[in-house]
Amino acid sequence: MAHGPQPRPLPSVLLLSLLPIAVWLIFRPFLSPVPPLPALHSSLGFSIIAFLAALYLVPALGGIMVKANLKGKDLLKTYDTPIPESLGLVCASIYILLLILFIPFPFSGWYNDHAGNQPTTKAAEGISVPEFPHHLLSLYLSSLLSLLMATMLGFLDDIFDIRWRHKLPIPIIASIPLLMVYYAEQGNTHVVVPLPFRPLLRRTLVNLGPLYYLYMSLLSTFSTNSINILAGINGSEVSQALIIALSVILNDLLYLPWPVDFRIPLHLLGSQKEVEVGGVWAAGMAYGSRQLVERHLFSLYFMLPLVGVCLGFMYHNWYPARVFPGDTLCYVTGMAFAVVGIQAHFSKTLLLFFLPQIFNFVLSCPQLFGLVPCPRHRVPRFDRNANLLHPSKALFERSPSHLSTLVLRGLSLLGLTELTTHPSTGQVLECTNLTILNVFLVRLGPMNEKRLVQVLMGTQVAGSVTAFVVRYGLAGLVYDGDRR
Amino acid sequence: MAHGPQPRPLPSVLLLSLLPIAVWLIFRPFLSPVPPLPALHSSLGFSIIAFLAALYLVPALGGIMVKANLKGKDLLKTYDTPIPESLGLVCASIYILLLILFIPFPFSGWYNDHAGNQPTTKAAEGISVPEFPHHLLSLYLSSLLSLLMATMLGFLDDIFDIRWRHKLPIPIIASIPLLMVYYAEQGNTHVVVPLPFRPLLRRTLVNLGPLYYLYMSLLSTFSTNSINILAGINGSEVSQALIIALSVILNDLLYLPWPVDFRIPLHLLGSQKEVEVGGVWAAGMAYGSRQLVERHLFSLYFMLPLVGVCLGFMYHNWYPARVFPGDTLCYVTGMAFAVVGIQAHFSKTLLLFFLPQIFNFVLSCPQLFGLVPCPRHRVPRFDRNANLLHPSKALFERSPSHLSTLVLRGLSLLGLTELTTHPSTGQVLECTNLTILNVFLVRLGPMNEKRLVQVLMGTQVAGSVTAFVVRYGLAGLVYDGDRR
Repeated sequence: MAHGPQPRPLPSVLLLSLLPIAVWLIFRPFLSPVPPLPALHSSLGFSIIAFLAALYLVPALGGIMVKANLKGKDLLKTYDTPIPESLGLVCASIYILLLILFIPFPFSGWYNDHAGNQPTTKAAEGISVPEFPHHLLSLYLSSLLSLLMATMLGFLDDIFDIRWRHKLPIPIIASIPLLMVYYAEQGNTHVVVPLPFRPLLRRTLVNLGPLYYLYMSLLSTFSTNSINILAGINGSEVSQALIIALSVILNDLLYLPWPVDFRIPLHLLGSQKEVEVGGVWAAGMAYGSRQLVERHLFSLYFMLPLVGVCLGFMYHNWYPARVFPGDTLCYVTGMAFAVVGIQAHFSKTLLLFFLPQIFNFVLSCPQLFGLVPCPRHRVPRFDRNANLLHPSKALFERSPSHLSTLVLRGLSLLGLTELTTHPSTGQVLECTNLTILNVFLVRLGPMNEKRLVQVLMGTQVAGSVTAFVVRYGLAGLVYDGDRR
Repeated sequence: MAHGPQPRPLPSVLLLSLLPIAVWLIFRPFLSPVPPLPALHSSLGFSIIAFLAALYLVPALGGIMVKANLKGKDLLKTYDTPIPESLGLVCASIYILLLILFIPFPFSGWYNDHAGNQPTTKAAEGISVPEFPHHLLSLYLSSLLSLLMATMLGFLDDIFDIRWRHKLPIPIIASIPLLMVYYAEQGNTHVVVPLPFRPLLRRTLVNLGPLYYLYMSLLSTFSTNSINILAGINGSEVSQALIIALSVILNDLLYLPWPVDFRIPLHLLGSQKEVEVGGVWAAGMAYGSRQLVERHLFSLYFMLPLVGVCLGFMYHNWYPARVFPGDTLCYVTGMAFAVVGIQAHFSKTLLLFFLPQIFNFVLSCPQLFGLVPCPRHRVPRFDRNANLLHPSKALFERSPSHLSTLVLRGLSLLGLTELTTHPSTGQVLECTNLTILNVFLVRLGPMNEKRLVQVLMGTQVAGSVTAFVVRYGLAGLVYDGDRR
């Protein structure tokens, strides 16, 4: 029998060269002159540590996972070697521990004393956000609690192998700390009414009240599960998380003060106005709003180390995978996105970064809700001889209902599934499983696993580009330009 | 072979009668007149819920634990039936989830609006503490983070079976959130200098700085591990936790405002002054200090549900045990004690409640640090025929060093161990294992397991009584009377 791949080599030069950079970034803000966004330097340093820690600890702890029976066979390979499972736990632990160690940097008022030496020059340079508002510490801690609960629940899921119908609502439990503190802090439950509905509702803002809390918990459920169901091939979960995190970071950067002034040619995206970002420490698209800068800094503090951890893990999870993430990784990354979307108030923009996941979810609905049979695994079918993946199929054991046939014929017309029909009656006998991965294989033909995950990543990037176009181009059509 | 015991029956009448009381207590503060300590009512209600949840969920989830291979043989029984292990995870989950759901009660300012209706009467009644200070929310959340990390690490310990030398420092990791937020909140690192040392140091307060953080992390390490090493017989872990929690609660109650006035006859304990507790809503031994009342309320919010969970779990863990706690219970209870000791600033008083644990730890040192051989299990030896426990023994495979012999002879003189010596040379061949449980068996003779745990509980209660005498009687000799 063929043997599994050897562990990937770890280039020690990486460690040697990146570690001093990380340490420098973490402690740079203590040297004068204090940079305008001091804690962001430290966060960047922590993210490099996160990357290195994941890079080295994930393979080192794989053996322990196998010993505790946390292992799985790679379904799409010729070898049967057990692969360590649930390494997302290691990633989540590194991530959360670093976020905890990071607490004093933005919240202890270290830099205030420094910045106090030169108040006038700072003021002249515009927004410098030296002090992080204290009440944000509670929000930060409640986010950590939710992340830790998501990790715990994800790991319990890995251990006890909870059935998917039962685990759908699990992220709601993990979001409880978020909701409780949001409530105790008397968080904003108003939403801006889109322009077309304003004449109808006769107001600009509408208070959703308890519905807003429902929305928040559903957001975390969605972001967690949508990554979890778009899984099954090497690197799929972590690459989605990585690209979404990078998109959120790019979006955050637009709201930060920059020393250079640049314009975004929004008219190319169909907007009527020009957006100017930066200027002498003017706060990007925050247009000088300190609150907006703070919110997006908050988001960056969570997203930068996530990118670090994901990159480090991806090195070992990339085709052919040496380790598997388990549900834990999906839970913690999904919860991280929900946390920043909620706490930094850009949940609608965040949802735009989930376009492939939304597509996958909507496409999966006929199988999730029983219109079409749903096998235990919907991963593509592996052709051992050619090393290619083909779309996997769901077999109708009884003849499909009229509704099922109608839905499947519609999807087939759109090219999203391939049907096998009875040659004489035309009755649907089989259809390809309704996942985005199978759609790729139906549309682009059989390909190997590495190629498939690359197509998935390409789609995710394309989705994010679309998201930016919609958010900064088309959103002007339904919302005021200066909404925050 | 004999079969293990059947699950203990659950008296449904308990559920039926306690649930409405719990609901009433939780929501009573919303009715006028608002009680003077509204959130404490709710906390009491939550604690009843915690008790009921543990009572019903622990046996219900035992089967799932066994399926995930979390089970163990009871070493001191005639039967070999596997007993579900790690049920501390269920207790910890109930405990932490209820603490999270409790957040809005003290922190959302619900009762301010109510209390606002009658400000003058309230003021006339003394301290009513209607509003919980906002900055305490961060401390509350950091405590929850530490508890959750302790739970997680305890469960990982159960799963991966970490060696005890490696797991000693684990609570330090769990205490990091506590330390970070304490630091970010610029928590007090001063300690009061005992009277005899004041002439030496020439000050009343001394700033320990970083040493204070070391002290805090060592406190959590101590409180966690000291419960963990005093284990091995049915009900031992949870009964220690229960009695310590009740002692902390009793101590907290002394600082709360009471409608009735009572005096504690402290002169009987050797103190020179009389202590008056209560009066018309005057704040007990807090002598009107709002901060002290808040701190002890904080402690009660953590201790009351812990008592609930421990009571519910103890019902199933009592001899003969139907479930085992695993390391998770020791970790979460130990961390809970560290949390209240640190956050509510009574760590020295807390340590006094650990007298039996301190005794057990000091006694264990010769075995922990290699002077005396340390077998894998130091639990008493079980005599199957008589159903009695005898002291277990450590065998010297090589002849003991002079130091070991000296230490053992000293302990033997004190009656803390029994030595088996060579009849002619007098060389020590064996000694009883150095744990408090074996000391009981050496001093009081063989007894059954149930009796032994009752002796342990009696000792714990006696320790707490001593602690109160020392704290409120003798402490006046080394500290000022009015220290806070």
